[in-house]
Amino acid sequence: MTYRAPVDDILLSLNHGAGLLAAVKAGHLGDYDIDMTAAVIEEAGKFATDVLDPLNQPGDRAGVKLTDKGVVTAPGWPDAYKQWTEAGWNAVSGPEEYGGQGLPLAIHSAVNEIWSASNVAFDLCPLLTQSAIDALHAHGSDELKTIYLAKLISGEWPGTMQLTEPQAGTDVGALRTRAEKQADGSYRLFGTKIFITYGDHDMSDNIVHFILARLPGSPPGSKGITLFLAPKFMVNADGSLGARNDIYASGIEHKLGIHASPTCTMTMGDKGGTIAYVVGKENGGMSAMFTMMNQARLGVGLQGVGVADRAYQRALAYAQDRKQGKAQFNKEDRSKSDSSDPIIAYPDVKRNLMLMRGMTAAARTICYATAVAIDVSNRAADPKVRAKAATRGALLTPMAKAFSTDIGNEVAAIGVQVHGGMGFMEETGAAQYVRDARILTIYEGTNGIQANDLLMRKLQMSGGEAVWDLLGELSAIVSKVEASNDPAFGTTGAKLRDAVASVERTSKWLLEKIATAPREALAGATPYLRLFSVTLGGCSLANEALAARNDESVQGDAGRYATLARFFAENVTVQSGALERSVIDSADALNAADAVLVA
Amino acid sequence: MTYRAPVDDILLSLNHGAGLLAAVKAGHLGDYDIDMTAAVIEEAGKFATDVLDPLNQPGDRAGVKLTDKGVVTAPGWPDAYKQWTEAGWNAVSGPEEYGGQGLPLAIHSAVNEIWSASNVAFDLCPLLTQSAIDALHAHGSDELKTIYLAKLISGEWPGTMQLTEPQAGTDVGALRTRAEKQADGSYRLFGTKIFITYGDHDMSDNIVHFILARLPGSPPGSKGITLFLAPKFMVNADGSLGARNDIYASGIEHKLGIHASPTCTMTMGDKGGTIAYVVGKENGGMSAMFTMMNQARLGVGLQGVGVADRAYQRALAYAQDRKQGKAQFNKEDRSKSDSSDPIIAYPDVKRNLMLMRGMTAAARTICYATAVAIDVSNRAADPKVRAKAATRGALLTPMAKAFSTDIGNEVAAIGVQVHGGMGFMEETGAAQYVRDARILTIYEGTNGIQANDLLMRKLQMSGGEAVWDLLGELSAIVSKVEASNDPAFGTTGAKLRDAVASVERTSKWLLEKIATAPREALAGATPYLRLFSVTLGGCSLANEALAARNDESVQGDAGRYATLARFFAENVTVQSGALERSVIDSADALNAADAVLVA
Repeated sequence: MTYRAPVDDILLSLNHGAGLLAAVKAGHLGDYDIDMTAAVIEEAGKFATDVLDPLNQPGDRAGVKLTDKGVVTAPGWPDAYKQWTEAGWNAVSGPEEYGGQGLPLAIHSAVNEIWSASNVAFDLCPLLTQSAIDALHAHGSDELKTIYLAKLISGEWPGTMQLTEPQAGTDVGALRTRAEKQADGSYRLFGTKIFITYGDHDMSDNIVHFILARLPGSPPGSKGITLFLAPKFMVNADGSLGARNDIYASGIEHKLGIHASPTCTMTMGDKGGTIAYVVGKENGGMSAMFTMMNQARLGVGLQGVGVADRAYQRALAYAQDRKQGKAQFNKEDRSKSDSSDPIIAYPDVKRNLMLMRGMTAAARTICYATAVAIDVSNRAADPKVRAKAATRGALLTPMAKAFSTDIGNEVAAIGVQVHGGMGFMEETGAAQYVRDARILTIYEGTNGIQANDLLMRKLQMSGGEAVWDLLGELSAIVSKVEASNDPAFGTTGAKLRDAVASVERTSKWLLEKIATAPREALAGATPYLRLFSVTLGGCSLANEALAARNDESVQGDAGRYATLARFFAENVTVQSGALERSVIDSADALNAADAVLVA
Repeated sequence: MTYRAPVDDILLSLNHGAGLLAAVKAGHLGDYDIDMTAAVIEEAGKFATDVLDPLNQPGDRAGVKLTDKGVVTAPGWPDAYKQWTEAGWNAVSGPEEYGGQGLPLAIHSAVNEIWSASNVAFDLCPLLTQSAIDALHAHGSDELKTIYLAKLISGEWPGTMQLTEPQAGTDVGALRTRAEKQADGSYRLFGTKIFITYGDHDMSDNIVHFILARLPGSPPGSKGITLFLAPKFMVNADGSLGARNDIYASGIEHKLGIHASPTCTMTMGDKGGTIAYVVGKENGGMSAMFTMMNQARLGVGLQGVGVADRAYQRALAYAQDRKQGKAQFNKEDRSKSDSSDPIIAYPDVKRNLMLMRGMTAAARTICYATAVAIDVSNRAADPKVRAKAATRGALLTPMAKAFSTDIGNEVAAIGVQVHGGMGFMEETGAAQYVRDARILTIYEGTNGIQANDLLMRKLQMSGGEAVWDLLGELSAIVSKVEASNDPAFGTTGAKLRDAVASVERTSKWLLEKIATAPREALAGATPYLRLFSVTLGGCSLANEALAARNDESVQGDAGRYATLARFFAENVTVQSGALERSVIDSADALNAADAVLVA
């Protein structure tokens, strides 16, 4: 079945759950015209349906090939990429002075979800290009920006992000790729990078590589790494392409999923060294890397949302179509009818579909809210508003990345389950989402790293102030739910109130433990991130349900959003108490774990 | 890394958690000599390590091929199957009068876990043969038994189970394969079956197919189906093989996992009809099918345990080997050391490994306890003891199947996560477990069907008596944990007591709802199964930890089992309260779900 962008859900989430409407009304988003949002989302949806979705399964089957002339992508991919750049989709949020459309990151995020839903392997190329744009825009010299930034923004020349080496994954400071300074101020790079997404391909004339390397005499670890830019083909003074640079894909990986996205081993220096230029300062690579990484983390979170939504759409269509048996105790007594029921008539199938939809919607709003916070931090006039929004964006980023990709995996797995035996057959398409989603919890910082980041950096910011601020807003939502006296919410108010209290207690306990027994705090990092996310997600869905009733643009029965919020609160947010106990109780058992694991 | 059977854990689980020792001491297992258990487990472990494990990844890569001569399995597989049957492994639990060793199902189950851990695609062939043996032994005529039973038990002729048709999956009664009675008392079959595991292969001279079909004039639905036996090659009076029977693999599926196990479309009747014999009575196919299915469900549960254990072993080895960064706040201050830490030093990685190990151990004991109950129901002298054990086995079977396969998927996914980026590369081997595990929650009755079975059949047996009996035993374990005053248990006692109370309250609520509002009960079937399983699993691990301290055969620090039980109680069983609420609160939201799903 064909992908359709869930335009209504996206708009409700953006405008209300994520707070875009309020930010625009408060004047924090400059001259952004909110009336254009729906049109952009709809157009993106059409492009995804018409161009990207039809290539998703064929791309998975064809995969990519490493040839004498470099990496060859699946049939149709170079043409789709050309259509993509020509339609301007790569330039949605890029700065206008370099040809970008300057739209908010929130809008960029919504369309990012749409690309990921229709074709996550394709989405990776622009996702990494965006990281390259961010790094170059923030840290690059005017000379480098003049040559490369407009090309990156249009997408004519996509970017890569080259950090990982065999011994340097999460510990990026352990990298060994060597940089040597030349007399002309340029550098030569020597070394090998692994797991480089779209490290080489045939979708463009040139590729702009962003590479972390180490200069001789630099301090050890992450303080001694420098970010370099190296084009695949050198650029002449007139802008034409010159000689091939000494950076080649020497291998491609055989992966569980995202088969159409080439994951390359890149070799530098076999032919005299890769000609490269410093981005930012020597030994300033770590901060440039975080610039690249931060938005990539949000982008990966949106991949989780996208894959989840696609898996949901496919499962829903199957459940409406597939007939099997008679659903017992159905509202209408069908016992005398000969025809069988579609499996969506079974309560257990309904439960699976509601879980898929609820988790997807909750993760969507967490991601969009992160984007709105970053937008306000970049665009608001008042420096205090900007600073507060920056803190909010920093707090939400690890949840946007980790929770969304965790649920991306969970939802994709349920999607196969709804299909029964057919789900296990590759032709059905449901299994691909399980395979594709499996990398999302790993790349751009594993979800364990995100949980540590939430705990050790984000919670601690100003003694937890960012957390207390957010919890205050969530409490206000809970009060509104309770005050609504709407029976459609069921026990939502109570579930959310308990959850907000759990986050507060757990956060306080963790802040104390970080100071006195940091390993015990770290033991609870992952359940803490989940606790916070299911609380935030539950409150966000309730907030959207409240708003939907007063939003004339919502189509159909607005009450359905209360049902969704309720289902999520009663089945997912309800886990808050148990997650709180896991954080607080289980450090002791982990301290004694070596006796179990290495007995 | 190579698979090693976890002999100590298996013995502790069998003897104490699952109650094998007590059953033997009470004389319920006839003349079974419990001293032989360890030797059988160890020998099975050797065979798995030496023969099955080395074929697992190559078999996944090679897959199977459909040729003019039928299905060809991966290189080495026919030889491994020959070694398997010659070593007597297929005959472990078969009846002695037909050449079986007559060992308890509990022992059979433990070795089943071992086969699944080392090679789940291989394990499927004997698993389905066992189902065929059960059906033929229980329902077949003496004539059929004489010809086929010894061959099936030795494994010389493996069996198949042919139920599914395109329109008849979960709703097996919708099948259309047609049976026509012949003058000589035999039958001819005409039709197509899909998803037939090991429907054809080159690992044996003959295959014994067990096929559900419909006789003309039979009642509609499941009351009108009959079980037939049809050999691939006819058997002459002297036992030699005769003509090829008219049943052929006409297609094989391209699946997400278990690539080495052929999943066939079987075509009957293109050459005059498949010659077949009734097993049991005409139109008695449903009860024969349940005989086949019941032990297959336990077998699939053990596949979940096996895949989980294998994924755990691989992740543990990787976490001990892979060095990355320095673990902050480690017990020893390593800040001045240059060397990096193995990732197992990180609390979050430890958490993942403990979760993998705890869930595997809990599911193992639930499966073994199911087997012990079935053994007692078959072997005890006292009919009352037999009846009670049969009830227990029936109650546990859906949990053994569904919980173990759910955690099989969860553990396999965590295993990839522990490997980081390497986990996503197929060469590492961790990804295969994710792919293989994905079918386990689906075949032999989806886990949704298991949850319905637990609710609508098993809970209701004698007004819930089977449940109250079991809860009484679990309460006694909790009291022992509390009385032990062992600080290693942490908050285990309180967590388990809460959980047992949750199961009791939820069971009572469900019993009432089944009578008054059955669709609302059905809406909670899946969380109820999980609630019951995490409670049973938590109590089982605690029980094993208590027993380990007094069991001289336990190697090393027996206290490690208390740590494992504690970790499971504080991180998994602790979810009981939330699961109870999901069952009780969320039926309303599901009743309103159509407005959300089909808006």
